[in-house]
Amino acid sequence: MKLATYLPASGNGAPRIGAVDTASASILDLQAAWQREHHGEHPAFASMLALIEAGEAGLRAARETEAHAGIGQRTPLGSVRLLAPIPLPPQIRDCNNFEEHMRNARLGMTRMKARIAGQPEPAPGSVDLTPHPVNFAHIVFYISNRFTVVGPDADIEWPSYADYFDYEGEFAAIIGKPGRDIPAGRADEHIFGYTVFNDFSARDKQAEEMEGRMGPTKGKSFDTGNAMGPWIVTRDEIPDCRAMAIQVRVNGERRAAATTAGMIHSVGQMIAYISQHETLHCGEVIGSGTVGGCCGLETGRFLEDGDVVEIDIDRIGVLRNRVRRQLPAPELRTEDNRQRSSID
Amino acid sequence: MKLATYLPASGNGAPRIGAVDTASASILDLQAAWQREHHGEHPAFASMLALIEAGEAGLRAARETEAHAGIGQRTPLGSVRLLAPIPLPPQIRDCNNFEEHMRNARLGMTRMKARIAGQPEPAPGSVDLTPHPVNFAHIVFYISNRFTVVGPDADIEWPSYADYFDYEGEFAAIIGKPGRDIPAGRADEHIFGYTVFNDFSARDKQAEEMEGRMGPTKGKSFDTGNAMGPWIVTRDEIPDCRAMAIQVRVNGERRAAATTAGMIHSVGQMIAYISQHETLHCGEVIGSGTVGGCCGLETGRFLEDGDVVEIDIDRIGVLRNRVRRQLPAPELRTEDNRQRSSID
Repeated sequence: MKLATYLPASGNGAPRIGAVDTASASILDLQAAWQREHHGEHPAFASMLALIEAGEAGLRAARETEAHAGIGQRTPLGSVRLLAPIPLPPQIRDCNNFEEHMRNARLGMTRMKARIAGQPEPAPGSVDLTPHPVNFAHIVFYISNRFTVVGPDADIEWPSYADYFDYEGEFAAIIGKPGRDIPAGRADEHIFGYTVFNDFSARDKQAEEMEGRMGPTKGKSFDTGNAMGPWIVTRDEIPDCRAMAIQVRVNGERRAAATTAGMIHSVGQMIAYISQHETLHCGEVIGSGTVGGCCGLETGRFLEDGDVVEIDIDRIGVLRNRVRRQLPAPELRTEDNRQRSSID
Repeated sequence: MKLATYLPASGNGAPRIGAVDTASASILDLQAAWQREHHGEHPAFASMLALIEAGEAGLRAARETEAHAGIGQRTPLGSVRLLAPIPLPPQIRDCNNFEEHMRNARLGMTRMKARIAGQPEPAPGSVDLTPHPVNFAHIVFYISNRFTVVGPDADIEWPSYADYFDYEGEFAAIIGKPGRDIPAGRADEHIFGYTVFNDFSARDKQAEEMEGRMGPTKGKSFDTGNAMGPWIVTRDEIPDCRAMAIQVRVNGERRAAATTAGMIHSVGQMIAYISQHETLHCGEVIGSGTVGGCCGLETGRFLEDGDVVEIDIDRIGVLRNRVRRQLPAPELRTEDNRQRSSID
């Protein structure tokens, strides 16, 4: 099942949750369809988080409601405005988990820093690309700003403090059942479904701040910086999340074509590691980490003002966003420049 | 004004918010006192977050309610159970911002790693303690797990994956007015107040995971790992948050006596930096970073099972917590041990 949060064509009122049918490019308002049959609201259809918290019973009600609804009750997808599936997630974690990405990113960071410093790029083979052993022994991740989430077709504000702006194509698992000390072998039971995730990144800022060995923060957490969507695909439709094809397109041009096979740790291992002594809650988002090849840092091609980025993941869908360059807030310009120059 | 979230003596019902009078060691139930005069509920007194979101009008109502209430309406502080002032904060950031802490922690980390590896401790003077320049040019911080917050007198669960467990004495600013691109000189307007913060830390795990240059995560984010309280002191009572005395006691023994003077960046600069292109919301917590000398990593004395830690900050109050060692969940023991040994 594909579940979306959206605003109706009128653009009025609170967000609705709907069941998407990609074949007919239509969406069914689950609460409205339920009300037609039952003359009352279903509490699980109040929001995506309510549906997730309702567990199996909520999903069953959603499936039955979709099965009973006629085609006439469906609205063309093109006439509604999709939001992020969970517009304000309870929490977001994002991992670093694809070896190819780590190797490419290490080279990319070295090249970018050389460019910023006005130095020649490192000779091929001169940079040790071996990932740090910590990436194999641990799950390396960080918590991102949950207030920065936007949905499909939302404009992404390029932060004024960044010169090198980038996309990161990945997928995210959405927690569907609370748990702690979850064994890897049972992690599947705790996954509600999957969505496409584009963790936009201010690369020059990120490179600076990672020297502090905390975060990343400003490099990843800024308003509109975490795009998710276009909907959540429930777990049953993704038999193996390590076998999904992924494409990245910028202005229609293909920049990456890969699969999700290259994860060092499975999603089950990620959930087992993260949930050690730490309770996971419904609706928490766990990013897979950038798939190898799926960001501009790896290819040396960063974003430009107005670029439209599409992350297209097999079995889930396409997440499309346009980036818009912002001017610095006048009162911050001086301090920001000072901060940047003192680091360069 | 000192504002607390608490459960009444009966332990029943939803948390209340109250005005604390430390001289008489009593607390006033703001909603109950308001109802006695006005025969209706004040929406701002529904929770600490509601009060913060109500802005100046909410605080004015709280002050007037306290001024009008008789002493007979107050409850002895000792008869209620204080919770964290905001039991589930919208978000937590914690900074690394005291130079003395950075220097001591660098030495402490080197010593701890030597101990873990069974190697001799580094000779005094052999470790370069100069903080990385990024700490002066940037605000170095991370986002922590907001679901891990507990209040005063709560037991802290020592995670089974840690051998070296530690406290971190600091204070936290609570955002009182939303904003973005907030100039440092106007940051005060966005601070609701301050509380005491003890960011309990699994040091050996933290040392390992910081090699991945992300986080820290498991080293800081585990259930019960972020203690806050005993209440929020409103901004007007703290004319200068860089001039507060702080003491740390373990089982009554003084382990640190310092002041908050050694911050590299002021709280205003921290808020200006963090809010660049990033909206801050009511109730978000910004930790000051560990005050120099105020953790065991700096002194070489880590916590033991059953230890009672008190962080005592002048003008705010005392945050007291007991740590309790946990046994590993059986199904995780093997994997955890493997993960640890592959890092050692």
